[in-house]
Amino acid sequence: MARIVAADDDDGTQQFYSMELNSISSVSDSTLGQLLKNVSDVRKLAVGDETPVHESLNRDNDDDLMRTVPFVLSFDNLTYNVSIRQKLTFRDLIPRRKTEDPEIAQTVTPNTKTLLNNISGETRDGEIMAVLGASGSGKSTLIDALANRIAKGSLKGAVKLNGETLQSRTLKVISAYVMQDDLLFPMLTVEETLMFAAEFRLPRSLPKSKKKLRVQALIEQLGIKNAAKTIIGDEGHRGISGGERRRVSIGIDIIHDPILLFLDEPTSGLDSTSAYMVVKVLKRIAQSGSIVIMSIHQPSHRVLGLLNRLIFLSRGHTVFSGSPGSLPRFFAEFGSPIPENENRTEFALDLIRELEGSAGGTRGLVEFNKKWQEMKKESNRQPPLTPPPSPYPNLTLKEAIAASISRGKLVSGGESAAISTATAATTLTVPAFANSIWIEILTLSKRSMLNSRRQPELFGIRLASVVITGFILATVFWRIDNSPKGVQERLGFFAFAMSTMFYTCAEALPVFLQERYIFMRETAYNAYRRSSYVFSHAIVSFPSLIFLSVAFAATTFWAVGLDGGPMGFLFYCLIILASFWSGSSFVTFLSGIVPHVMLGYTIVVAILAYFLLFSGFFINRNRIPDYWIWFHYMSLVKYPYEAVLQNEFSDATKCFVRGVQIFDNTPLGVLPDGMKLRLLDSVSRSLGTTISSSTCLTTGADILTQQGVTQLSKWNCLLITVAFGFFFRALFYFCLLLGSKNKRR
Amino acid sequence: MARIVAADDDDGTQQFYSMELNSISSVSDSTLGQLLKNVSDVRKLAVGDETPVHESLNRDNDDDLMRTVPFVLSFDNLTYNVSIRQKLTFRDLIPRRKTEDPEIAQTVTPNTKTLLNNISGETRDGEIMAVLGASGSGKSTLIDALANRIAKGSLKGAVKLNGETLQSRTLKVISAYVMQDDLLFPMLTVEETLMFAAEFRLPRSLPKSKKKLRVQALIEQLGIKNAAKTIIGDEGHRGISGGERRRVSIGIDIIHDPILLFLDEPTSGLDSTSAYMVVKVLKRIAQSGSIVIMSIHQPSHRVLGLLNRLIFLSRGHTVFSGSPGSLPRFFAEFGSPIPENENRTEFALDLIRELEGSAGGTRGLVEFNKKWQEMKKESNRQPPLTPPPSPYPNLTLKEAIAASISRGKLVSGGESAAISTATAATTLTVPAFANSIWIEILTLSKRSMLNSRRQPELFGIRLASVVITGFILATVFWRIDNSPKGVQERLGFFAFAMSTMFYTCAEALPVFLQERYIFMRETAYNAYRRSSYVFSHAIVSFPSLIFLSVAFAATTFWAVGLDGGPMGFLFYCLIILASFWSGSSFVTFLSGIVPHVMLGYTIVVAILAYFLLFSGFFINRNRIPDYWIWFHYMSLVKYPYEAVLQNEFSDATKCFVRGVQIFDNTPLGVLPDGMKLRLLDSVSRSLGTTISSSTCLTTGADILTQQGVTQLSKWNCLLITVAFGFFFRALFYFCLLLGSKNKRR
Repeated sequence: MARIVAADDDDGTQQFYSMELNSISSVSDSTLGQLLKNVSDVRKLAVGDETPVHESLNRDNDDDLMRTVPFVLSFDNLTYNVSIRQKLTFRDLIPRRKTEDPEIAQTVTPNTKTLLNNISGETRDGEIMAVLGASGSGKSTLIDALANRIAKGSLKGAVKLNGETLQSRTLKVISAYVMQDDLLFPMLTVEETLMFAAEFRLPRSLPKSKKKLRVQALIEQLGIKNAAKTIIGDEGHRGISGGERRRVSIGIDIIHDPILLFLDEPTSGLDSTSAYMVVKVLKRIAQSGSIVIMSIHQPSHRVLGLLNRLIFLSRGHTVFSGSPGSLPRFFAEFGSPIPENENRTEFALDLIRELEGSAGGTRGLVEFNKKWQEMKKESNRQPPLTPPPSPYPNLTLKEAIAASISRGKLVSGGESAAISTATAATTLTVPAFANSIWIEILTLSKRSMLNSRRQPELFGIRLASVVITGFILATVFWRIDNSPKGVQERLGFFAFAMSTMFYTCAEALPVFLQERYIFMRETAYNAYRRSSYVFSHAIVSFPSLIFLSVAFAATTFWAVGLDGGPMGFLFYCLIILASFWSGSSFVTFLSGIVPHVMLGYTIVVAILAYFLLFSGFFINRNRIPDYWIWFHYMSLVKYPYEAVLQNEFSDATKCFVRGVQIFDNTPLGVLPDGMKLRLLDSVSRSLGTTISSSTCLTTGADILTQQGVTQLSKWNCLLITVAFGFFFRALFYFCLLLGSKNKRR
Repeated sequence: MARIVAADDDDGTQQFYSMELNSISSVSDSTLGQLLKNVSDVRKLAVGDETPVHESLNRDNDDDLMRTVPFVLSFDNLTYNVSIRQKLTFRDLIPRRKTEDPEIAQTVTPNTKTLLNNISGETRDGEIMAVLGASGSGKSTLIDALANRIAKGSLKGAVKLNGETLQSRTLKVISAYVMQDDLLFPMLTVEETLMFAAEFRLPRSLPKSKKKLRVQALIEQLGIKNAAKTIIGDEGHRGISGGERRRVSIGIDIIHDPILLFLDEPTSGLDSTSAYMVVKVLKRIAQSGSIVIMSIHQPSHRVLGLLNRLIFLSRGHTVFSGSPGSLPRFFAEFGSPIPENENRTEFALDLIRELEGSAGGTRGLVEFNKKWQEMKKESNRQPPLTPPPSPYPNLTLKEAIAASISRGKLVSGGESAAISTATAATTLTVPAFANSIWIEILTLSKRSMLNSRRQPELFGIRLASVVITGFILATVFWRIDNSPKGVQERLGFFAFAMSTMFYTCAEALPVFLQERYIFMRETAYNAYRRSSYVFSHAIVSFPSLIFLSVAFAATTFWAVGLDGGPMGFLFYCLIILASFWSGSSFVTFLSGIVPHVMLGYTIVVAILAYFLLFSGFFINRNRIPDYWIWFHYMSLVKYPYEAVLQNEFSDATKCFVRGVQIFDNTPLGVLPDGMKLRLLDSVSRSLGTTISSSTCLTTGADILTQQGVTQLSKWNCLLITVAFGFFFRALFYFCLLLGSKNKRR
């Protein structure tokens, strides 16, 4: 096979290619950087070398189709089986008499199910391929299979681009997958949302001004210019419309102008006009040289006019495959002609559904389709889709991609990236991410700040709950005295106050969970490192924690009459801050593993209750049974609790039991004062010391000993609390690493 | 106006009628019972007097139309304005610098908005009238206006049935309103669901066998015979399909075969086949002699074929009104002919939307429609809809309804009801509900039991959380000794244990909230009394609470080593049960006022924390500041806590401080035992008593005094706890009374 690049420098390039292929095979496939490298080679052949980034987007269609690099995606005999796991429910665990509901028993069928059965097809750039079928027919599964979102071992069959098997890593670079849900930061404007996407996905070598240009071009292309400065919005904040939101979601995923675009029901939930606008945008994207493949529920007549190829699925089988125009002939020949004026796809779907409900099922239609496909092939004598004549005949896939990049696709960053790789051709240290970790953290933090600054009510609610609890505690424990009773109350105050820090952190659960879904989508295509997210998450939350800490400390410290002066107050602030920090880290970690808010909240509340139980307040350390002592040391509440106790009772000059107060917590406490003085006298004599009514009998240190708070200094407690925070952040990071595989088994 | 009834017994009946009208005017309008009364009068005129209930449902259409009682619903110049309230958000409360988001400021526009603007139209029995338009066009508002779901003062214009203004109470009896959401008990089968609806809505005079027949006929009519024995299902349990679910929802509301049926987007979220099936069912209902009015988003071609009248709305204005067949001519004359093969309604909606986006808006179309309507009227010279020739000419509305009932409509219960009212013509004590309160409670309880028995995992989770907490407490506080330290730990155990009872109740919040929506729908049409629901709710939850109480009590009582023997254990069980009872009542009450689960959970957790703070454990009653003492008495946790303390410490023979233990909680506690003995000796001498090392110094009673637990006996505490439960149930009842008005202002 004669390569054009080979004609240029036969020996050298060929050799280089095999070298490169070796190095590639060691990392198993190619990356964007390697693709970019090839750009410089192909670029020389390109007609308009200096084509600015994405000028092509706004060109005329016909003109465009002629000039873009040709791509053909084909898939053969895709088959995907899943074993239906037997769900173990609670009812299996308890013995019970047989009830009269056989339908419940029915649902448990241990078996394998074929979700895709020998699905084949092909499509090319400039076209939209739509997958249709009832829910459960395998629409989404087929899209997932093509988008490489099914684990390798499970899917049988081949997906090829320009005749070459697609490597997973290449696919990640040249494709985009648009999910059904619009997961967007509600308080960012459309423009900001897309700009952040540009910063994450476009190479750092691309100057900011060019990124801005790209965003503006995209806004134009998506037809959302009027909404550009409007916030996305949510239930509480009016924002853009559903159709606009969907287009923004698509915009985020096509910011880098992918060659392959997959969409799962991009029009679901939209009215017909919005749906049409969305598909029109997709058509424009296809015509800029991309392959668009999507599932669609019920395309309207106008939408149908934009689609080039249809695949109808029924229970994993293809029941029709062809152009919208061939639908009437197909069904007429099958024996069920489509009536005049009837929506074709609607009719087809209804027919399929009827067949599914009938005794024979859709087998007849499946067989007819097979015959029809063969017949069509024979009668047309049409060879399978091949790249049409183009300025670049016989390119390998890699070269085609590189050529496409050189023409502005995948927003390569043009000159700089291409040149740098060309000059340093042998050093192939290619980053998997567009930006350095610092820029990622900065950008993520900026976005998160922007989003939360625009909804101050969220912080307001948290501040209010902290201040209100502070106020209640301050007034209930108003200026506690230094008597033995007062000591007991101080302990209660500290236990309650420290738990409050942790409980108020739970209120942030829904926010974290919401963000987690955005995170999963973004990291699915390597928008940024998971670690960057973990860092920025911690950084962004910190300033508000400082504010909350000072607010609570100031409300309670002097009102309750805590000890230590300015330094005591400072430490009190610090330990509260540390509690907030480790509490929010704990909640963040939990938000990484729980599936939904309610469960998360229940778990947080339960675990915090146990933490409190084992903190040392309800039962002293030295009285906790040995088999539970591990839980005592795991209790997050223990450390702040001990820290504030030490902060309070460390003053050696302060006295908590003086003279006759010695009898306060004993049965003798009820005696009159004169009697107690005499008793004190006799005790004093027995002990051979002089204990007057003003002698201090218990200092803070004694109380600490009584409470078993002796193992750690207050600074160590602070350190451990802070360390717990870091520990949970690390756990959160590992959760994110493990939890966002984003692939079917 | 000559009445047919008058011809039968001119004087008597006429007199009776005016009498009746007087009594009606005092209750403002007529009830089902009064309508039923008339049946006996009209029945005499009917051709087939003994027509069995709903035989007519399965008859042929044409035949049917001829024989049913004619009804015409007309509405004139309906206008509805709402004042847009200025939403006060948190951001208004805090001073802040101007940000660059003008779109947020825009959302606040204090103004009135016209949701309906002079809408007129008419429709008759046998027909489906569909209201179309983009979201926000006023579709649902028009349906609400016709269904009398807008408060009287706000809506201008008239809604008339057979030329008579519809009274709200009459409407409630003869109509049904099907909401968009399918709110069904997930674990009941289709048949059970409809049977419960029959028991709630059909008169008690109707024997159960007839109710069963009605349900079977309805299942047939709805086309869900195959699914009859399948459970409804939810996320965790596989059940019937979305289309079937929707049909069951409709079935519930038409169990009594209403004359007027309103539906808000009955096909939303359904695929085209399911949507068609649903509308086909509606057509069948219409043809049985009902008027069907619904809003619809985007009817398919086939669905359009079933609709008789269309009203297109745009921002509260009528832009088209007429039959589906007249659409092409209308738009052709307007100057935008509908292209061949295009879905007509889709085209129309898109055109309207385009106009809405244009400078002039839809004003042109609105004006054109007005002219077109006038033109049509003139050219046709067609009088407005009047009841066609029928066996019952010139009936008043009341007579028409009565005649309709006699023909099986509104499932009157036929003979028995009619005869009983005819014989006792003067005693018009007519119940607003189909059943007595006892039958309601029984039926509600039966349904609730059935539903929860089929998902034992919900109870399992609660039981597990109670038993696990019990186990942890039992092992942590394993056989507490009777030393002063032990006393302190006992207090901690009781405080923690009693709070646990309340916290675990919060886990039932989501279940209650889910049920609340079903309740709101059902009471909207007087399916049962609100009080019945409150009672049955309490009754159903009780047995599981008993089980939970005994489980927790048995886990902890002997393990911790609590006092009181069998009687003590019994009381311990009782007070735990009382805690569960008042806790679940409290949570039930909250579920009646909070809008969603998360908020409810947060509030429950916070309030319970404050209850615990003020219970007397953290700070004794006599030490709580005066300004907070009210909260102490409001604290739900206080009473169970004091009750268990008294149960534990009431034994006068039990000793908690003996001999030298007197020094345990004092600075002298650290001295060696010999020294303490000598001290005890000298104290003893000083006091002039003999305190040996075995003398009891503190009994339980002393501890109760120390803790300030002296005001109430343990039985009074139990009583108050139980009373709190009833109090919150009563509050819940009032919430339901106030909260489910179900009308727009």
